[in-house]
Amino acid sequence: MIYMDNAAMAKPSERVIDAVNSVMREYWYNPSSAYGKGKESKNSVEWAREQVANVIGADPSEIHFTSGATESANILLQTLIPMCNEVYISAIEHPCVENATGYGAGILPVDKYGLIYSSELPMYKEDDDTETILFVIAANNEIGTIQDLDFIGNNICKSRNFLLASDLTQAFGHIPIDVKKSNISFAFGSGQKIGGLSGCGWLYVAKEHEDLIKPLCIGGGQDIFKGGTENLTGIVALGEASAEVLENLDETIKYETELRDYMINKILSEIPDTILIGHPTDRLPNNVNIGFGGCDSESIVQYLDMYDICCSAGSACHTKSVEPSSVLRALRLPSKYINGSVRFSLSKDNTKEEVDKVVGVLKQFYASKDKEC
Amino acid sequence: MIYMDNAAMAKPSERVIDAVNSVMREYWYNPSSAYGKGKESKNSVEWAREQVANVIGADPSEIHFTSGATESANILLQTLIPMCNEVYISAIEHPCVENATGYGAGILPVDKYGLIYSSELPMYKEDDDTETILFVIAANNEIGTIQDLDFIGNNICKSRNFLLASDLTQAFGHIPIDVKKSNISFAFGSGQKIGGLSGCGWLYVAKEHEDLIKPLCIGGGQDIFKGGTENLTGIVALGEASAEVLENLDETIKYETELRDYMINKILSEIPDTILIGHPTDRLPNNVNIGFGGCDSESIVQYLDMYDICCSAGSACHTKSVEPSSVLRALRLPSKYINGSVRFSLSKDNTKEEVDKVVGVLKQFYASKDKEC
Repeated sequence: MIYMDNAAMAKPSERVIDAVNSVMREYWYNPSSAYGKGKESKNSVEWAREQVANVIGADPSEIHFTSGATESANILLQTLIPMCNEVYISAIEHPCVENATGYGAGILPVDKYGLIYSSELPMYKEDDDTETILFVIAANNEIGTIQDLDFIGNNICKSRNFLLASDLTQAFGHIPIDVKKSNISFAFGSGQKIGGLSGCGWLYVAKEHEDLIKPLCIGGGQDIFKGGTENLTGIVALGEASAEVLENLDETIKYETELRDYMINKILSEIPDTILIGHPTDRLPNNVNIGFGGCDSESIVQYLDMYDICCSAGSACHTKSVEPSSVLRALRLPSKYINGSVRFSLSKDNTKEEVDKVVGVLKQFYASKDKEC
Repeated sequence: MIYMDNAAMAKPSERVIDAVNSVMREYWYNPSSAYGKGKESKNSVEWAREQVANVIGADPSEIHFTSGATESANILLQTLIPMCNEVYISAIEHPCVENATGYGAGILPVDKYGLIYSSELPMYKEDDDTETILFVIAANNEIGTIQDLDFIGNNICKSRNFLLASDLTQAFGHIPIDVKKSNISFAFGSGQKIGGLSGCGWLYVAKEHEDLIKPLCIGGGQDIFKGGTENLTGIVALGEASAEVLENLDETIKYETELRDYMINKILSEIPDTILIGHPTDRLPNNVNIGFGGCDSESIVQYLDMYDICCSAGSACHTKSVEPSSVLRALRLPSKYINGSVRFSLSKDNTKEEVDKVVGVLKQFYASKDKEC
């Protein structure tokens, strides 16, 4: 099998599998318990919190565990928006943030690469009593485009007194991130994009803005932003995966970037009427999103699946959509490329030989379908 | 070690550990993916849904996975209350439901055993345009008292046109439950109380009342009541644990009930000034809650911990509380018993020898602390 859908779900690493097993066998006790074994569980939660904090340069006390990036985004948006703060989101946010437009968030348009226009950003804070918050996804899940958060956080947000919130789901553990350096006040991500487990994510809230946020699920007070017994296995898996990706970050970025560019160049040069979707260089090291002119992306995914090749059409994080995603529409590319958009998201386990194999099968698809394409 | 805190967290069984490992190694793919491997993950989610449904007599389509009982309760309450429905909760709900009083839910008082008074229930629906919903915890997490849901659901709710919602967290997989027979419209529970993993729970919404409920976390539309990538390991663990407990339910109830009564009788007869808290017979087969007259429950828990005995003071599901819980207060027992309330929650792995050992250590505690007690 050739797995190139790591942006949807990354395979749990051996270290993560081992860590999950030790939770299930040794540290499965309730972290809220008063006895010693419960305290060991609590310690493993705190250890994991530190590992996540290390990846983004936050203080561990600013990291809160949730059931995933979707819950984290909802905690932020469902607190910030009803409190009459001014919220703007980029036009290429994940559905969990994009849904906020239904509650009155403004939209920041993007160029054909998916980069937001600085000139379209609001110029000043509308009201002294409320905050103006920009939601800008650090690296887009579908097209891989990386925004210049350093510039947005420091040159725009700082001078205009805005707060910056960023969906780091795809950026986390894939590119260097420093929330303090980029002046990011709120951020979030999830475990399964770095080889942790699905069902566990994190929310970063800068200490000085904690008072703006409220929990969505109220319960036994385990975390200030999420009630309910901690997801022990998910949290420890996220911690272990965070430690692992951070240790190997430079090396992984170098390997993946080279493989990504090899794949992009090979497809663009060997398959006619194809374009790269997203930014040519400011993109995730593992993201290859190709517009196959005049083809139907679902047919390509299904064809590749027959050869045990896993990739996705549009965004595989959300299901049952038949329309091109709002992200792809926001780029205003010709529809023949949008409808034929296929995302290959690589990992350090992929090889050039696999890329050659995939491109070979793609050519075969074209040969078999040449009447349709 | 003697573990008697199963109501806080039950040890994952070997079957559950194996199932989690096969997810991590074989079925870790995103269930929303279009390729075959993703469909296998999706199938394992659907299999788990069936197992949960079987335990409570629901249709699988009525089961929705969440991050735990706390999220499930919040989904229900945060949808039902703002829509101006009339919500009543029993005086002995878990904090995740009890918090709803802050939003205007009425409280149904209980007797000294924790049973709700039928006579205190509202007599009729207040308004034709809204629903009247009673939240009654099936079996209380602290005192173990089991309510007569059959009577409440059929003799009260049906005739008065009320809807019944029930926290089944402790009842699920511990006593027989049939949501259809008991006329329950909404219910919820979690994995970690039956040997699944913490961080994953379920929400039951009767098909005919689906329109009353909205999701709390909006995202990629994976479930109508919860957005976000499914917690695959948690869901499969919950499914496996559900199948396992259902297979052994009668046998487990028989074993635990006998052990429970042995422990209760032994403590009450051998340790002076102790009372059983909760109902003497309508109680969870694995719940032993003792009021140690004039003792401080935290001191007992700490003392037992020195002998590697795990149990809890008040409810260990929520942390850092120094006040007696609202559940214990609702019983209006003399405070000398309330302050000395210790919960031992058993499992089929506990033995009479362990009970004897625990009672021995309790006597030792009395001997060492006799000036304080």
